[in-house]
Amino acid sequence: MEARTLIERKRDGGRIAPSEWRSLMKAYAAGDVPDYQMAALAMAIFFVGLDRDEIVALTDAMLTSGATLDLDHLRVGRVDKHSTGGVGDKVSLVLAPLAAACGVAVPMMSGRGLGHTGGTLDKLESIPGFRTDLSLAAATTQIESLGCALIGQTREIAPADRKLYALRDATGTVESIPLIAASIMSKKLAEGLTGLVLDVKHGSGAFLPEVERGLELARTMIALGADHGCPVVALLTAMDRPLGRACGNAIEVEESIMALRGEGPSDLMAVTYALGAEMLLLGGAARSRDEARRRMEVAISSGKAAERFQQIIEAQGGNPAVVDDPSLLPQAAECELYLAPRGGVVAQVEPRAIGRGITALGGGRTRVDDIVDPAVGFVITARPGDVVRAGEPLATIFARDPAGIAIGRETLARAIVVADDAEPPLPLISHRVTEAGEERWVDE
Amino acid sequence: MEARTLIERKRDGGRIAPSEWRSLMKAYAAGDVPDYQMAALAMAIFFVGLDRDEIVALTDAMLTSGATLDLDHLRVGRVDKHSTGGVGDKVSLVLAPLAAACGVAVPMMSGRGLGHTGGTLDKLESIPGFRTDLSLAAATTQIESLGCALIGQTREIAPADRKLYALRDATGTVESIPLIAASIMSKKLAEGLTGLVLDVKHGSGAFLPEVERGLELARTMIALGADHGCPVVALLTAMDRPLGRACGNAIEVEESIMALRGEGPSDLMAVTYALGAEMLLLGGAARSRDEARRRMEVAISSGKAAERFQQIIEAQGGNPAVVDDPSLLPQAAECELYLAPRGGVVAQVEPRAIGRGITALGGGRTRVDDIVDPAVGFVITARPGDVVRAGEPLATIFARDPAGIAIGRETLARAIVVADDAEPPLPLISHRVTEAGEERWVDE
Repeated sequence: MEARTLIERKRDGGRIAPSEWRSLMKAYAAGDVPDYQMAALAMAIFFVGLDRDEIVALTDAMLTSGATLDLDHLRVGRVDKHSTGGVGDKVSLVLAPLAAACGVAVPMMSGRGLGHTGGTLDKLESIPGFRTDLSLAAATTQIESLGCALIGQTREIAPADRKLYALRDATGTVESIPLIAASIMSKKLAEGLTGLVLDVKHGSGAFLPEVERGLELARTMIALGADHGCPVVALLTAMDRPLGRACGNAIEVEESIMALRGEGPSDLMAVTYALGAEMLLLGGAARSRDEARRRMEVAISSGKAAERFQQIIEAQGGNPAVVDDPSLLPQAAECELYLAPRGGVVAQVEPRAIGRGITALGGGRTRVDDIVDPAVGFVITARPGDVVRAGEPLATIFARDPAGIAIGRETLARAIVVADDAEPPLPLISHRVTEAGEERWVDE
Repeated sequence: MEARTLIERKRDGGRIAPSEWRSLMKAYAAGDVPDYQMAALAMAIFFVGLDRDEIVALTDAMLTSGATLDLDHLRVGRVDKHSTGGVGDKVSLVLAPLAAACGVAVPMMSGRGLGHTGGTLDKLESIPGFRTDLSLAAATTQIESLGCALIGQTREIAPADRKLYALRDATGTVESIPLIAASIMSKKLAEGLTGLVLDVKHGSGAFLPEVERGLELARTMIALGADHGCPVVALLTAMDRPLGRACGNAIEVEESIMALRGEGPSDLMAVTYALGAEMLLLGGAARSRDEARRRMEVAISSGKAAERFQQIIEAQGGNPAVVDDPSLLPQAAECELYLAPRGGVVAQVEPRAIGRGITALGGGRTRVDDIVDPAVGFVITARPGDVVRAGEPLATIFARDPAGIAIGRETLARAIVVADDAEPPLPLISHRVTEAGEERWVDE
């Protein structure tokens, strides 16, 4: 196996055989294939693509480059939820304890924010003391007792993917559907799941803005899951505006706590319940969507879901008191209301601009090793379609100093467009995709 | 300037501005942009291309990353010849001393063999003692006295190109016309030329087999030369069979010496004279092609051309006696005739198979740091179109041991096809391309 030969073959439209993928990724993980050859291959894949057998082989090669969670001894279904990423997307923080409280085991492995999107690990780490770097053994024990662990990709899990992901981020080769699918699935399959629910974002703030590309990614990952005996269900949801109101690490944790207490914004709750119902169905914790919805509502109104989040926080070293008193989360030194510059209709709340604004405030990453300020961000109450008067509050800016407030003001002036008319936003949930095919989503 | 942004822009079909090329290549040469980012960019360029302004900017950026030869004080034209590479192509060895003997200064910077093609430096170094690693100062002094120096790309010349070339070789990004053109021209322009003659090979043994791609490369390099005040003339010549008879390092030197003595094979002489006439015209050493041809014939028949080669060898530390007695060159331990397996017409002498066979015998490189055995190779007397009888000698194999002879036999059995009929081979010279346009070559 000479890496150059494989690069040239892929570049010229050929296939790489499963055994070649295995030796290539093994050699790459071991440092025997240099990053520059893998970068050239990733760019060739960006242009040429991979066929289904190649995606399966690449996923397997990355999966078997590391360890896997063994949860077969649990008597309940193990279901995770994965989102392709967006702005204000705190669904994982609500859904993991909620689904666990409803009897599904949730071995959830999340990532950090990068580019304009936030990351679940960064949000969780804004809870004082919270640790996401559990060993696989510790995560297993916690899943046995609490039905849920919220961890990062450990060194043990899919090391070849970990290395390739960092390389793709530096080399402009992130936006390749076969590489995205193989990367996500190699990690998810390592969690020992019996089912997986995907939240595939589309719209201007998504990695893949076009709905057709989102559907293609969903189909690819569903096929990969099927090949490994792990049923996958995908919902396509809107990312042409932020999800919920809070955008920023600690303030998203606060909004998630409010949601677990039954006080979440309606769009966040709708997406959470829709994805949650799929988790409960896949995990065998409900027989119908109606039943699943009722179980989740009871878990929230009874306080069980919030209590489960509190137990998880405590088990992972965080201060559980934040669930009762979110003011214990890091607070920004400065805050200021942002007022409508004119009257009219809110035509746009552009998520990429918001996401980049959070990074400019110090709350996001442009490099993997950037340190994140947990307290900064925006709470945006204005939604596309709202009729507003000049001078009416549209949002609140949270920053560490007056200079940050100025950055926040510029960000919102770009992101929030008030106009005479507005196009209708994307439907919050547009498609449901399973192995059987795709269907348009109809609100119940 | 963030490299990732430039990679993504190029990947999506955008342009990189001249100032961005300058800072990118400066940072790359300094090690501040890692190889993996440059590899991804090179692969994106392979698919997307570069426009003319970008090729000029990249060439300039690589040219100005290092030192240049200053030969303005010479009263004669400075003209180099560059070949895109092939099998048995020893024209440089004949032409450099020949043009110098005719009054043109030839600051010739050559490369090593790689893949299936041979390299002028490897051939020269088969002459005992010959050194190609002259400093720019030493090369200048030698050009002043002998009108010619035969050197490799020193550390001083276009270091950004040197680094990028090695990277492209390892990452399957060699076959990109903009990158090939910028790489060649950044080195050639560093030689302080007043003119450049290109030998663009086409046919199965060329890097770019299709004649249209060869013409595109020629046009790109002619435009680049014009932008730098260096007129470029290109001839498209055949590489669907080896040039001349000898294929291998020392035996090609021997054939070159014979050519300088007036005993070269007719195809080698025809290409040498055609390219040489362009050099003499560009260098102001002749006013017409006829005059140029006569001057070259006289230089050979008078012994001046061979004498000049002898002087160059001596000046560069080699044993000048090889010109009078080529048996002083390294000799293979084993040799064997290869006989026609059947009667018929020679339908093919496939250069790639021959080139790979030389590498298999130890006489070529698959990696930049491979050590080359100078003595091995083939002398192939059969030419496409020859009528042969079964058992008639077609070639001689030169190897270091009986195992090598066996490899040589297998190589020739694949490379030399004897059949009932044969397609006519490509015309030896097919096109002449200048800034004014291209014309079909007509033999005089």
